[in-house]
Parts: sequence; C-alpha cells; structure tokens
Amino acid sequence: MGNFYEKMSEGASAERTQIFKTAEYQLNHPPAVDINTTGAYIDVNSHNDKQKLHISLPNQTEQVLHVSMDIGGTLCKVVYFKKYKKSRGGRLIFEKFQTSQLGECLDFLSQLVTKSKVVKIVATGGGAFKYYDQIKDALQVEVQRADEMQCLITGASFFARNIPQEIFCYNSGTENPIQFTETPSSYPWLLINIGSGVSMLKISSPTKFERIGGSSLGGGTLWGLLSILTECKTFDEMLATAEAGDNRNVDMMVGDIYGTGYSRIGLKSTAIASSFGKVFKNPAEEFSSADISRSLLYAISNNIAQLAFLQAKIHGAEHVFFGGSYIRGHPQTMETLAYAINFWSQGVKKAYFFRHEGYLGAVGAFLDESGELGASSSESDSSPEP
Amino acid sequence: MGNFYEKMSEGASAERTQIFKTAEYQLNHPPAVDINTTGAYIDVNSHNDKQKLHISLPNQTEQVLHVSMDIGGTLCKVVYFKKYKKSRGGRLIFEKFQTSQLGECLDFLSQLVTKSKVVKIVATGGGAFKYYDQIKDALQVEVQRADEMQCLITGASFFARNIPQEIFCYNSGTENPIQFTETPSSYPWLLINIGSGVSMLKISSPTKFERIGGSSLGGGTLWGLLSILTECKTFDEMLATAEAGDNRNVDMMVGDIYGTGYSRIGLKSTAIASSFGKVFKNPAEEFSSADISRSLLYAISNNIAQLAFLQAKIHGAEHVFFGGSYIRGHPQTMETLAYAINFWSQGVKKAYFFRHEGYLGAVGAFLDESGELGASSSESDSSPEP
Repeated sequence: MGNFYEKMSEGASAERTQIFKTAEYQLNHPPAVDINTTGAYIDVNSHNDKQKLHISLPNQTEQVLHVSMDIGGTLCKVVYFKKYKKSRGGRLIFEKFQTSQLGECLDFLSQLVTKSKVVKIVATGGGAFKYYDQIKDALQVEVQRADEMQCLITGASFFARNIPQEIFCYNSGTENPIQFTETPSSYPWLLINIGSGVSMLKISSPTKFERIGGSSLGGGTLWGLLSILTECKTFDEMLATAEAGDNRNVDMMVGDIYGTGYSRIGLKSTAIASSFGKVFKNPAEEFSSADISRSLLYAISNNIAQLAFLQAKIHGAEHVFFGGSYIRGHPQTMETLAYAINFWSQGVKKAYFFRHEGYLGAVGAFLDESGELGASSSESDSSPEP
Repeated sequence: MGNFYEKMSEGASAERTQIFKTAEYQLNHPPAVDINTTGAYIDVNSHNDKQKLHISLPNQTEQVLHVSMDIGGTLCKVVYFKKYKKSRGGRLIFEKFQTSQLGECLDFLSQLVTKSKVVKIVATGGGAFKYYDQIKDALQVEVQRADEMQCLITGASFFARNIPQEIFCYNSGTENPIQFTETPSSYPWLLINIGSGVSMLKISSPTKFERIGGSSLGGGTLWGLLSILTECKTFDEMLATAEAGDNRNVDMMVGDIYGTGYSRIGLKSTAIASSFGKVFKNPAEEFSSADISRSLLYAISNNIAQLAFLQAKIHGAEHVFFGGSYIRGHPQTMETLAYAINFWSQGVKKAYFFRHEGYLGAVGAFLDESGELGASSSESDSSPEP
C-alpha cells in the first residue's frame, strides 16, 4: 500500500476536470455517416430478454457499416443497425454482454462482421483501451476508440432530442408513474451515469460539457456486496429479491434511536438514520436476503441522489438525468432517485430517466464514429501526484 | 412498505433545517454550575482500555452534582467529574457502553449516584427520549433531556476553545502525522459527526449553527456489514483487520477498466472506480476479510468526505471538523478523511479532528446542564409529508 493515492475513489477528480470543446472538436471531425433519425420511434413490440427495445429508423435507407461497443467494468454494450427486409429503413439494435465474457461478445460481433460486411468497430469505455488488441485480432477490422465522456453526452443528447417517448419522469404514488416528457430546453443539465461506478457530468449547452465528479459507490458495489451477502447470481435476481424485502428490519430508523421523530431538525421517525445499523452485534442469520437487498439498494441509490443533488446545487442545474445500467428500468431504483431529488430540492429540481439507460455511451460511439481519439487520451496520465 | 418515506435516509432533512438561536437560548438559561476550565489539560497518563484520556481541571474546586449521557444508536457515552483526593481540582472522565446493554451503563451510574451524591442526569442523543422512563426508574434522580445538535456544538466548541492539544490535523506521509493545531478563528466551520449515521452542521459564529444535512452511510453501515462479512466481533477488531488488507483485491480500479489511467479527465489508473467492483461473479471465498474491511472502510470514509466537501463548498466553509465514534483515533480513517478534503479542495479546505472525538455530545450535555428541552422537541413530528 505504498501509493497513498490508491485509497482515493474516482470521485477524486471532481476538481480536476477539463472542458471538452466539443463544438470545435466536431467541426474538425464531421460525421462520415449521417444517421437519418427523421420519424424515429421506439418499437415497443421488439422487446426480448437479451435486448432492449429496438429503435426504428424508417428513413435510414443506407446500410451502416460500423458497429459500436461500450466496454465498462462489468458490462459490454453493443449497438448496430439492421435494415428491414420487407420495408423501408431499419432498426437500431441494443445488446449487452458481461465484460468478463468478452469472448462471447466478440464471437457475436465476428458473425455480424461477416454477415453484414461491417468494416469498423467504434469502441468506447475503458475496455476500448484495455482490450484494443484483443478486439482487433478477433475481428480483423479497423477498431476506432472514442472518448467515454464524449460518447455519454452524444448518446444522451441523441436520445433526449431525437427519440420520442425515450425520456420520462417517475412520479411515485400515481397509477402510471412513468410519465413521458419533453426534453427541457434550458441548461445546464446534470447527467449522472451509474455503471459499476458513477460519473457526474454537467452539460452547459448542446456543445459544452465537463465531468464534475463521480463516486465509487455504484452498481459494482451493490452487485458485489449482494453476491456475497445473498444467494443471488444475477442483477435481476437481486432486484427481484429487494422488491420482497423490508429495509426497516436491517436499517436503524430515527424512531429506533429516538422512540419518536426528532422534530427539532425535521427528522421523521421513519427516516433511515443508519443503513445496516441494526445488524451489528446481532447474528447474521437474523437478516433475510430480501431485507438486506432492499436496504443496500436504498443506501446506494439515496447516496447517489444526494451527491447528484449537491452537485446540482453547486452548478445551478434544475434538470438531473440519470443513466447507466444500474437503473435497469427498476421501479424502486427510479422511485428512490426521483423522490430524493424532488425532496431535497423541495420540488425545484427534477429527475429524468432514459428507456435505453444503459446504452448512452454505446449509442454515442455509434453516432460519433468519425471522432477518432488522439493517442494523448489513452496513454499518459496527467493527474497530479498527491 | 406502505409509507414511501421509509426509504429516505436521514440526509433527507438537508433542506429542512432550522437555525437554533443559541445565544438567545443561553441567555434565557444561564448555566447553574459554571465549570472552571482555567488551566485545563489532557492527562496523557490516564489512558486505559475503557476510557478516553481524562481532562484535568485543576481550578474546578467544587464537586459537580450531575452526570451526562449521550445515548446514540450504537454507543452510550458518559461524562462525569471526579475531584482529586490529594490535590486541588479534579478531572473529567469519559466512558462508553453499548446502547444495547444500557442496563450495564445504568448499573454503573447507579453506583456513581450513590457514591458521589449525584442529583441529576443530563441526557442527550435519541436514547434520552427513547429510554427516558427507564433511566428515571433505574436512577431515581432528575433526568434532564438536552438537544443532540446543541450538545454537539457546545461540546465541539468547548474542546476547540478550552482544551489545549485537543484539536489536530492529520498530515499523512509525515513522521508525526498528528499535528496539534490552534482552533481557526474564522467562520463558518462544518462539524461532521460520524456515529451510526452522519450529521452535518454548519457553525456560522460562536452562537449560531444549523444542521445542513446528513447521511445514513456511517459507522453503523461499516460495523453492520463487516459483522456479516467477516468474523470480527468488535469495532477495534474490524479496524485492525482493515489495516492488514489491500482494497485493490476487492475494488475495481480505473486501471482494471482502462488498462491505464483515463488522462483526459485526470483519473489515475490507481483511483478506485467501483468499490467492491471485483466481487460480482467471483466466488465469495476468493476475498479475504482484511481486503473487504479495508475496501469498506475506504468506501464509507471517502463518501463522507465527499459529502462534507460538497457541503463545505455550498456553505463557503474552509474548516471541516470531524467528530464521532466512527473515527476512534484510527490512522487510516483520519488519513482518508483528511486526504480527501485536501485533495478535492486543492489544499484550500482543511480537516480537523478531536482527541475526544466520540464525546462531543456527552461533554456538551455535561456543560449545558441548565438547558432543559421543551416538550415540543420530543413528541411532535414537524417534517412534511412527502
């Protein structure tokens, strides 16, 4: 443990961000393929277990000769275009794989490369660098790397601006909590991307953004801890287990400490004072997997929402977009995030979600395929020594 | 799970605070016993396993006829004064008990009441309300309740202003990391009290403070999770176990995702991208208790420091004081908190610690013994329905 830096979480870069001059950047790198999104719509009949809903692009008549990958710490997401056989246009298809089973993903892409005459892979996320040689060797086509933050922004903007019924707010306690909504016209927005870890970006205008912070307490923390603490083997099992749980059996509530609420500072007896606070000194068997899962889901989600709220306050942002594979369309997760933003901001700030929440980076890479990264982004390490 | 509010952590009150007009309050409640702190010093030879270092008060010649308790979710802290037999003055003594074994604490106090002719107990923390009747019945003396936040502030101010060599900064990487320091003269300060949960207070002047937020991810979370995940039975075992661990075996580092750093946004390869990010899909046996303990200690400490930093930024505070029993004088914990505040603020903000970190509330109650709380603070619940 010689290097003290190793204890710092990745949020450590909060104050070390740099603004990406994307307008200028894009001017110098005009898109080679212009995807025609006129008349785009989400094909609600296309859902299956492995894929997210397709996006139909009826006016994209050209085949697209590249495929994109976003290789994160836990998941590898793939986006590609497939022409319809019988009608005009085609559809964007969204698939995911485990990063730990990258071979499976490369087998899939290898078939796609052969069948659809793909000439290029646009790769983003950390794995675009870590597995660059492996991807190149396996697929034998050009592999272009794209910056992760840039792709997140491009993808988020695409979904928000071009795809009807993609963006929604979550209003708990109502009959239809998912309310599709217009994308807000005013800036700044925050984009909180929750994958294995959390990245927080401020979008100041359609062409200007910066990474303002992050947290190491993200999806990887929830999945990692629950894979030790419960018998669950998949994310979806964990979320299903959480649904049946009651966090009050595990968490120490204000009422457990006070007997009542703590009115002088406005803490209700039913607020969580300490996550997992009832566990210490009690035998582990007393706690059910369901209660543990629910407690941890709340703890991680509440914490991300609180960090997001504080960042939104610092940066004067009213609109907080949540993306990333952590969310998985899971009602309790969205409810917690949306409720927390609303509560802390006293209704001033609003949480937004994406139907394709896990594919912001992958679709951004798909659209950004002309913007090859310079070598400077992959090798040197400019952050200061502590 | 009918009440949606139950998912909210206690940080939820961030925007619902109220300013305690303590100057006015104190004017209306002059102290009945004025503790003479002239010449007070920490008796460094008084340490034993159960007690914190005594504070010698050579000029407090009167016996003090009350004892204070601060009853939190996990620990119950006691402060009392004992006259020296052979010399002038006496000493403040600091003891702690498990809240779950309150009977043990009451037995101890019962003896003290008889032996030292104690006429009053000043109790703070949630347990002052929850266990009010039990304390009264067991000790048969007056029990006066004191507000928890008020006591924290009174205690912190007392230690900072009246006790030499109580406040220190932690400079890691130096031969003597603990550097005793003068209490800063400028306001505002933040006081981050880390017990089972976390409370964050802004101190704007010697007589004005407000609770600005909190978090449910605190000591109770660390202790609770580690009591399931490891064989450790006590806090000190957990901390000792963490010292031998290497979090890089459990956490997903930026380098694990990228292969290198992510220089464009200043993330070093050695920064933590996802706490526990390496655990998912790997058998639990692969991970040692030591590595797990270290990872979780970093995760919780870093997160508290990040919340504290963001709050300090919002409230323009340069001085961030950390108190509470979570810290326990543990080097890695203080190192993480101090380093994070320094790093994120680029050296502008500074972390301070107390030698009696767990006794801010208890000593505050001891000194504040004249300030009986009105009934309004204990019963009604004024926080708004969501």
